[in-house]
Amino acid sequence: MLTATRELVSDVGYAKVTIEAIAARAGVGKQTIYRWWPSKGAVVFDSFLALSEGADGIRLPDTGDLEADLKTVMRATVAEFADPAFEAPLRALNSQIAEDPDLATLYREKLAGPLDDAKKQRLLSAQRAGQLDEGADLDLVLEVLYAPLQQRWLHRSGPLTPEYADALVDVTLRAFAP
Amino acid sequence: MLTATRELVSDVGYAKVTIEAIAARAGVGKQTIYRWWPSKGAVVFDSFLALSEGADGIRLPDTGDLEADLKTVMRATVAEFADPAFEAPLRALNSQIAEDPDLATLYREKLAGPLDDAKKQRLLSAQRAGQLDEGADLDLVLEVLYAPLQQRWLHRSGPLTPEYADALVDVTLRAFAP
Repeated sequence: MLTATRELVSDVGYAKVTIEAIAARAGVGKQTIYRWWPSKGAVVFDSFLALSEGADGIRLPDTGDLEADLKTVMRATVAEFADPAFEAPLRALNSQIAEDPDLATLYREKLAGPLDDAKKQRLLSAQRAGQLDEGADLDLVLEVLYAPLQQRWLHRSGPLTPEYADALVDVTLRAFAP
Repeated sequence: MLTATRELVSDVGYAKVTIEAIAARAGVGKQTIYRWWPSKGAVVFDSFLALSEGADGIRLPDTGDLEADLKTVMRATVAEFADPAFEAPLRALNSQIAEDPDLATLYREKLAGPLDDAKKQRLLSAQRAGQLDEGADLDLVLEVLYAPLQQRWLHRSGPLTPEYADALVDVTLRAFAP
């Protein structure tokens, strides 16, 4: 069902996806889907969560070199955003999250929250190692690191390159230097 | 027509607004609207553009004190985002921009572009005054300053306060210090 959902979103766009169409493509009854998910948004969300293999147990690399580790992570993230296969479904999911407070909660609890926790663990380790301002608000650090990328992608306002990933890390480390 | 459009978006939400409903509320024929705007998205966009009194001729304050001027501007911007009257329509417009490349182009040309130019004029003045890194990429400076706010608002992920506005200015000035 989750694969059928993802394929459908990619083929026709989120707005035109219906529970009926997901059921038909997956070869199950509509009621089967409603048994597990309360809404279209929830199925689509889970279909992408499955793709990212879940956020639990995720750890960021910690070689002791904060700059190198963050550049590894940010280059991979930028590449993912620039991948056409992720484009349409991620964009649809993003709009849906902005308009649907329930889905926004689900997103925070199941995906963004655990991912942010993993990122903060890495930043805490850097604070302990004296590589990052001890007093820094880690939510703000993550916003400065990731929000420009999110916005550039959302508004298609600039290139998504490895150099851009590196620049975001450089800027963040300068802003929150010890 | 623009007032009718804004009221309608606030009352029923962007998704449920139709050209017919705008026409009915404004007391004009459907064709009158189609004569001036190619799509629902375009009318809604113009209705908000009218609200912001257009972006042409906008100048940022330039007292010579970059930090003070940016804090004035960012506090006003954060207050606007936190205003419930702007909430529903701005959110709808944002989703629409993310999904509709034509509207995204219109948005960049008519609103975001001129506003960014005004902001960059202020940053150029600061570079000349030695208050900002001469080599700084001004697009990146604006992203670091504004994108965290955009994301926090979009994802409802944190408080929108004057202190937050100030923190974004402090972080940006540290990241791009001469």
